[in-house]
Amino acid sequence: MIVRQARNVLRLLEFFAEKKAPATLAEISAAFGWPRSSTYNILTTLSNAGFLYEPRARAGFYPTPRWLQLAQEIAEAEPIPEALTGLIHDLAEGTGETVWISAPSGLHAVMLHVVESRAPVRYAARPGDRVPIHATASGQALLAQMPSRDVDVILRKADYVRYGAGTPMTRAEVLKGLEEGKARGWFASASNYSADLGGVAAPVAMAGRIFAVTVAGPLFRVGDRMEETAKYLIDALAALTPA
Amino acid sequence: MIVRQARNVLRLLEFFAEKKAPATLAEISAAFGWPRSSTYNILTTLSNAGFLYEPRARAGFYPTPRWLQLAQEIAEAEPIPEALTGLIHDLAEGTGETVWISAPSGLHAVMLHVVESRAPVRYAARPGDRVPIHATASGQALLAQMPSRDVDVILRKADYVRYGAGTPMTRAEVLKGLEEGKARGWFASASNYSADLGGVAAPVAMAGRIFAVTVAGPLFRVGDRMEETAKYLIDALAALTPA
Repeated sequence: MIVRQARNVLRLLEFFAEKKAPATLAEISAAFGWPRSSTYNILTTLSNAGFLYEPRARAGFYPTPRWLQLAQEIAEAEPIPEALTGLIHDLAEGTGETVWISAPSGLHAVMLHVVESRAPVRYAARPGDRVPIHATASGQALLAQMPSRDVDVILRKADYVRYGAGTPMTRAEVLKGLEEGKARGWFASASNYSADLGGVAAPVAMAGRIFAVTVAGPLFRVGDRMEETAKYLIDALAALTPA
Repeated sequence: MIVRQARNVLRLLEFFAEKKAPATLAEISAAFGWPRSSTYNILTTLSNAGFLYEPRARAGFYPTPRWLQLAQEIAEAEPIPEALTGLIHDLAEGTGETVWISAPSGLHAVMLHVVESRAPVRYAARPGDRVPIHATASGQALLAQMPSRDVDVILRKADYVRYGAGTPMTRAEVLKGLEEGKARGWFASASNYSADLGGVAAPVAMAGRIFAVTVAGPLFRVGDRMEETAKYLIDALAALTPA
């Protein structure tokens, strides 16, 4: 069950990251369609706890730097290997597409670090975005690194829903894609999850953890270049991790 | 009214910043004394929204880098002047005490940037911490920069509670402290709000906003050195802002 008031805190944080300016009670109430009284209550809760303040008198609320301090402490404790974040910047530059690092989280692959393409039409993604692990190139590059017992559990629980033209619809189809991918060293997706999106992903194990690096973009741009892109990705990873 | 489930999200974020490691549902439920079912619901809400994930199978939840990305976007939009944050690092080094920048927020002064003393016995503070604006050195350094009409409104609404031996208990006492401080250029607190804490604060206006810089520590260390510390603080600020 989703806890509405918890979700609302996250929505407020996203709201301010987007707006990048203070907002008044009336503006926030209008933006979300929340009643004035409950908007007042959530703003008071966040202010009392030191997470919001009023930078200018009567000009509205804005998050304090407390979020940043806590988020930095959290990120420093569980860093993604720096070599890997550096690599995806280079890959984004080299391919012109969006590149990300993901890790498994239950039935999902979750994006930990994202460098977006600068192309006007691009795959827009953010850290924390999740995709079904069984249905995507990122996910399959992660599954390929797991013990088969864990893969079995995941594929038994997975929700075989049709997301796009390329979605694998059965456990057997996923296993087939996994075997093919393992054989060639990379995993492909063409409208598997997001319509008109194509990508290639490769597995990478570092610092005792498993990750996937994915390059993805609109199918019209990447569809014909999958092999080429995969080779570029795999060569970059090989240069990074001593064989 | 405090929204409990909103407050719980903030407590979870603080919990992970402190723990710096993944925590299981059972651990979180035990740490907060939350029922297992409601712990499950809040963890699910945060996971579904991309703010938590499970970095290792069955090893528990940890915040994703989404918090950091949003907090960085928020901080970049409303920066504290860099010259000022640099200055408080120097001041903390030079005085050996905790130094912070605060700004007004309604009836409070809120700490925006804090450099803690390295002394084992020190004033421990974090961004987002709030103190009553009328009762503290930080607050009075802020009030001193406001139009008297705004000061009047604040002092009418203020809650004249006894926090410590030095708390000003009436509007007249606050105004007297304000006048004295304005005359000498700095504001003092000795057990005004926190027992056994002393500090000096100075006003500073930058980038169209008003701030206060405060140096504070245990009274046994700073009590006899207030004038000296205030002079050090004011000289540093004078070097920063062209007169």
